[in-house]
Amino acid sequence: MFNTFGRFFTVTTWGESHGPAIGATVDGCPPGVPISEAAIQPWLDRRRPGQSKYTTQRREPDAVEILSGVFGGQTTGHTIQLMIRNRDQRSRDYSGIAEKFRPGHADITYWQKYGIRDHRGGGRSSARETAARVAAGGLARAVLGELIPGIQIRGALVQMGPHGIDRSRWDWATAEENPLRCPDAAAAERWADYLDGLRKSGNSCGAMIEVVARHVPAGLGAPVYARLDTDLATACMSINAVKGVEIGTGMAAASLTGVENADEIRLGHDGRPEFCSNHAGGILGGISTGQNIVVRFAVKPTSSILAPRKTITKSGELTEIVTKGRHDPCVGIRAVPVGEAMVACVILDHVLMHRGQVGENRGTIG
Amino acid sequence: MFNTFGRFFTVTTWGESHGPAIGATVDGCPPGVPISEAAIQPWLDRRRPGQSKYTTQRREPDAVEILSGVFGGQTTGHTIQLMIRNRDQRSRDYSGIAEKFRPGHADITYWQKYGIRDHRGGGRSSARETAARVAAGGLARAVLGELIPGIQIRGALVQMGPHGIDRSRWDWATAEENPLRCPDAAAAERWADYLDGLRKSGNSCGAMIEVVARHVPAGLGAPVYARLDTDLATACMSINAVKGVEIGTGMAAASLTGVENADEIRLGHDGRPEFCSNHAGGILGGISTGQNIVVRFAVKPTSSILAPRKTITKSGELTEIVTKGRHDPCVGIRAVPVGEAMVACVILDHVLMHRGQVGENRGTIG
Amino acid sequence: MFNTFGRFFTVTTWGESHGPAIGATVDGCPPGVPISEAAIQPWLDRRRPGQSKYTTQRREPDAVEILSGVFGGQTTGHTIQLMIRNRDQRSRDYSGIAEKFRPGHADITYWQKYGIRDHRGGGRSSARETAARVAAGGLARAVLGELIPGIQIRGALVQMGPHGIDRSRWDWATAEENPLRCPDAAAAERWADYLDGLRKSGNSCGAMIEVVARHVPAGLGAPVYARLDTDLATACMSINAVKGVEIGTGMAAASLTGVENADEIRLGHDGRPEFCSNHAGGILGGISTGQNIVVRFAVKPTSSILAPRKTITKSGELTEIVTKGRHDPCVGIRAVPVGEAMVACVILDHVLMHRGQVGENRGTIG
Amino acid sequence: MFNTFGRFFTVTTWGESHGPAIGATVDGCPPGVPISEAAIQPWLDRRRPGQSKYTTQRREPDAVEILSGVFGGQTTGHTIQLMIRNRDQRSRDYSGIAEKFRPGHADITYWQKYGIRDHRGGGRSSARETAARVAAGGLARAVLGELIPGIQIRGALVQMGPHGIDRSRWDWATAEENPLRCPDAAAAERWADYLDGLRKSGNSCGAMIEVVARHVPAGLGAPVYARLDTDLATACMSINAVKGVEIGTGMAAASLTGVENADEIRLGHDGRPEFCSNHAGGILGGISTGQNIVVRFAVKPTSSILAPRKTITKSGELTEIVTKGRHDPCVGIRAVPVGEAMVACVILDHVLMHRGQVGENRGTIG
Repeated sequence: MFNTFGRFFTVTTWGESHGPAIGATVDGCPPGVPISEAAIQPWLDRRRPGQSKYTTQRREPDAVEILSGVFGGQTTGHTIQLMIRNRDQRSRDYSGIAEKFRPGHADITYWQKYGIRDHRGGGRSSARETAARVAAGGLARAVLGELIPGIQIRGALVQMGPHGIDRSRWDWATAEENPLRCPDAAAAERWADYLDGLRKSGNSCGAMIEVVARHVPAGLGAPVYARLDTDLATACMSINAVKGVEIGTGMAAASLTGVENADEIRLGHDGRPEFCSNHAGGILGGISTGQNIVVRFAVKPTSSILAPRKTITKSGELTEIVTKGRHDPCVGIRAVPVGEAMVACVILDHVLMHRGQVGENRGTIG
Repeated sequence: MFNTFGRFFTVTTWGESHGPAIGATVDGCPPGVPISEAAIQPWLDRRRPGQSKYTTQRREPDAVEILSGVFGGQTTGHTIQLMIRNRDQRSRDYSGIAEKFRPGHADITYWQKYGIRDHRGGGRSSARETAARVAAGGLARAVLGELIPGIQIRGALVQMGPHGIDRSRWDWATAEENPLRCPDAAAAERWADYLDGLRKSGNSCGAMIEVVARHVPAGLGAPVYARLDTDLATACMSINAVKGVEIGTGMAAASLTGVENADEIRLGHDGRPEFCSNHAGGILGGISTGQNIVVRFAVKPTSSILAPRKTITKSGELTEIVTKGRHDPCVGIRAVPVGEAMVACVILDHVLMHRGQVGENRGTIG
Repeated sequence: MFNTFGRFFTVTTWGESHGPAIGATVDGCPPGVPISEAAIQPWLDRRRPGQSKYTTQRREPDAVEILSGVFGGQTTGHTIQLMIRNRDQRSRDYSGIAEKFRPGHADITYWQKYGIRDHRGGGRSSARETAARVAAGGLARAVLGELIPGIQIRGALVQMGPHGIDRSRWDWATAEENPLRCPDAAAAERWADYLDGLRKSGNSCGAMIEVVARHVPAGLGAPVYARLDTDLATACMSINAVKGVEIGTGMAAASLTGVENADEIRLGHDGRPEFCSNHAGGILGGISTGQNIVVRFAVKPTSSILAPRKTITKSGELTEIVTKGRHDPCVGIRAVPVGEAMVACVILDHVLMHRGQVGENRGTIG
Repeated sequence: MFNTFGRFFTVTTWGESHGPAIGATVDGCPPGVPISEAAIQPWLDRRRPGQSKYTTQRREPDAVEILSGVFGGQTTGHTIQLMIRNRDQRSRDYSGIAEKFRPGHADITYWQKYGIRDHRGGGRSSARETAARVAAGGLARAVLGELIPGIQIRGALVQMGPHGIDRSRWDWATAEENPLRCPDAAAAERWADYLDGLRKSGNSCGAMIEVVARHVPAGLGAPVYARLDTDLATACMSINAVKGVEIGTGMAAASLTGVENADEIRLGHDGRPEFCSNHAGGILGGISTGQNIVVRFAVKPTSSILAPRKTITKSGELTEIVTKGRHDPCVGIRAVPVGEAMVACVILDHVLMHRGQVGENRGTIG
């Protein structure tokens, strides 16, 4: 009801930023899929904090333990429990702000609703929860690898603060090499300077992430509610700090005419339908077209900043707040593997639902 | 699993564009709420086609019938069946395109998945399904009116094709008076000229809708998955033709710094917390702040256009397509009441979930 | 949440005994299954009231209308709306008891919870709701017929009041021929006399129903929660007036030793595993064995009886009550097709879930 | 979908008999409820193996760890992770039977479906899973204690093999004192002799458990599907080895007449409605009456027995099997706390759903 994501392949996350552990309880996974902690760990390593000066200096090994649902190196078809212990919970960092609400942060609403102020950190609203998503995503990727060989799900940062990229320079390898996950090497340098400046002034910035899924078969999704685009939007909007999500041309589709927006159809060399453009982002009427699936989401700037902001205390007094702690100047960077993980979970969920309801695609062309 | 929306207050829609009827099966509604067909009908009338030259000329009375769940003028707490008969299904209009796929339309994916080409219209992918949402939304508004007196949910068009509005001229009354649902009277005139031109050339355009909910209490939502913003995104992205959705500052949050984005907090005249700005769109950490909730979504241009586009047939031949039928040049106009309805359903859903889990907000300030 | 049954193939029923119509909203149905009203109607006719002196004299044609989800004689894969209009709602029959609570009836709890007394009949708690289940079951049977050719789901009455059957005389054809659905012709005669006596004295009696599903493949179900036996129990216990449900040997398993209860395994003529007995009722560890699935459930006596009983009024006064109306002296008779329908829905649900999660059974024997 | 129980207060269990740990992931729990490991442990201790010669000699401390969802000694309203480590997994005991299927056991269906033979024990089908239910039940009891002070949920064994009890001797204290959980001291002695005999001969027996919930308020449940009795049946039937479940008079209701079954209503000393009998088991029309809720379920005999039984091997050869291991001669004994836990979870689930949908009961009497 509250902490579960997915329809058939479901992921229930648990754990707080400063408790003993966090994790993901995964249900609906097919049996017989080879999996191990070693296969999931690299995805967690991609998200792990403390890897560059641009991310929080909290040191967490983020080692995943599989507690159930795997036997003899294969999934059993039963609940898979993925646990990650918290190691470096330096609670004292938060002591200065325990009675104040951080502007732009969940502090105040969390307090109003639950009557709880977890002075050790954000409690359940901490972005640390996303490590559990990445673990579940690693599992989803393994299952997808069995069911749809060749599928590829990758993400990159396409905007940092006001700075975008030149899409003609897009290079996936570049995105892996630089700590900012920027696919445009020239932009990456500018971004680094910008971020250094922000960091030194105790400020932070927002970012835009793009996740692309290649070789997703046509036919996944449904026309209403269980739409593939809806579920991708749900997945991305459920990530902390995300304020917007779009598919294909996205918000810019508002500006287009029908003539411009129509992705014309032709036949490819293999005799299969092919689209001359991809404004649709790989999804028409909620169902995948076989083109690349393209999802973008915007992450707001970290609200825990050193620059002083006006706020109030729990007892209702006006004050100023300065948040020390160890925070990412741009949480968008670490949101890349999180977005990838969510897209992987959504696609797997739809692969299983499709198999359950339809079996195999029923319509042929040509 | 496939056709249901909501967690506690659930809406399952049914029906095809050219079948005998469409409707919404609503579960989880509280008992004892005064309701009647007359109370729901005005919301359907707001969405009804054929009201101006800017919307499809299909003539549908869209009269809602309550078949169950209401007794003696009050909800009973049991399933409420809302049915709307289809009256004006002119199937012949589609005969010319039965073998061709409309670019930018669900035709091709629907066929590939289900092996069905409902030559009478879009079948389940038709935007006619949204009438059922509006009926459910009318019911949700009635329940909200009982539980949260004073709540107000309103929408308007804030962009049509490339043309925006001047927010300083925003006037809700204006949005109700002009057929384009534009809150800026000057912009409305420009839009009308633009749309006339498109319509005459057999083209169409996209649009952006903004829905604002006022007087929503603080405390609705949750930090993960059952977030209020996530559920609003799900709700809006599930509407046909929507390609992007955002909360508050939305995609533009990517461009901001933490200092800019932080909505500073002070005390209002009533001694309750007040925010100096609303970049958050009324939601922090997935939970409502008590500020206005602001959701925007982009609708792509209608894909059924008179301008010829390249495509293929079911048998795999290259061809061109021209879609006659009766289509909206800008479906965004009629998406306004649909967006309002979805927001109403989401807020009610969270009101009931909150009451179930928490009872009343537990934290006080001041 | 409240009115839906099933996990993947879901059935949401709606409607009250004395409203305009009742129905079932079905989701998750595979596309491409031939179906029509004519294919569903016979199952409704089996349950229809007024067919003999042993069932209520209310005259309802119970004609099902398919309002959505079927096109060109086939399921589309979208929501299927099955509607049955109420025709013979003689509300005046209830006027004498509007202020009194019937002992053994939902009147009192319904009133306490919802504050509603639907003086026209039982409202949502009426057994009329079960017609919608039978319609959904007819659809489920059609889908099962496509996916598991040869599957057979049949029910019979095995006890009426204190009178049982001689299992050695079991004959399915007999059960279809007599109005009491008794598979033992000799018992049927005794039962008829017994029931005549009860009816004349304004009394009623309970009954036990047995439903048997043949040719269900091994492998449906799961070890925990989504067990096939659990879902069958849920299905049967959700039928009005059911007070107990059992699988295979059932409650009598408490009396057995491990040696007695163990269904020994051998190889059949076809080289496949075969069981020497079926105490398990076709389900081991929540998963089907391939043997006959055997479910039994007990229905309590109709609580609307002519014999006077002590009760209270809404205003808290002691009184006596005599219920006139048109009621079944033994509701168990008409519960047979309802039980069959529920078993059909459960098995289909598990067939689709199994296909979604596992694809095909993974273990082979021999 | 597969491993979750509950509608609003949901429990997802995980873990295998011989893996590192098992546990329950609980969602939907209200915030602010005092809870600790110490408060849950006594319920686990009631179920723990190795406490008498009548239960398996496996030695498990069954110490519960709360990994999330509790802060400062109170629930936070977020996912609660309850983990129990496995300590005494003596896998070698199973080596002799790894290639054979135990008659009456899930071995064969588990293998057919998943292609997995967890030679270390029953894998996911092991009754060890029920420890996680008991932990969740302990949490549910703590929440119920806050929301419904005075509620009491207790269970006892009312039949062991063919031996019943004399209900006039029922004494709850006795049920707590003897290792067989028998509420009739005289019967307990006979049962002990019977069970000793079975144990020595390598045999086992079934049992019947009765759980009684006192001081449950009227109004919990719904007339269709989300019925309180349906959810109790689901809960009990989902426990390993359960073959039947009944409410109140249960299966025996089939034998009664309407006159006998009607629980007449009068006014109690406090002016509130009171029933002269409780055939209903505290539930009418799916909704609680305020009387004692009475649920019974039958557990089949342990299928892992020393007495040799005919069976086949994975490769399809006829053979005999003798199961050594450490098994309970009567699993029913340890099923008592499991049944209590499931009833606690169901009642809490309905308390929260009721609060969410209805708020407070709407109908008054007198």
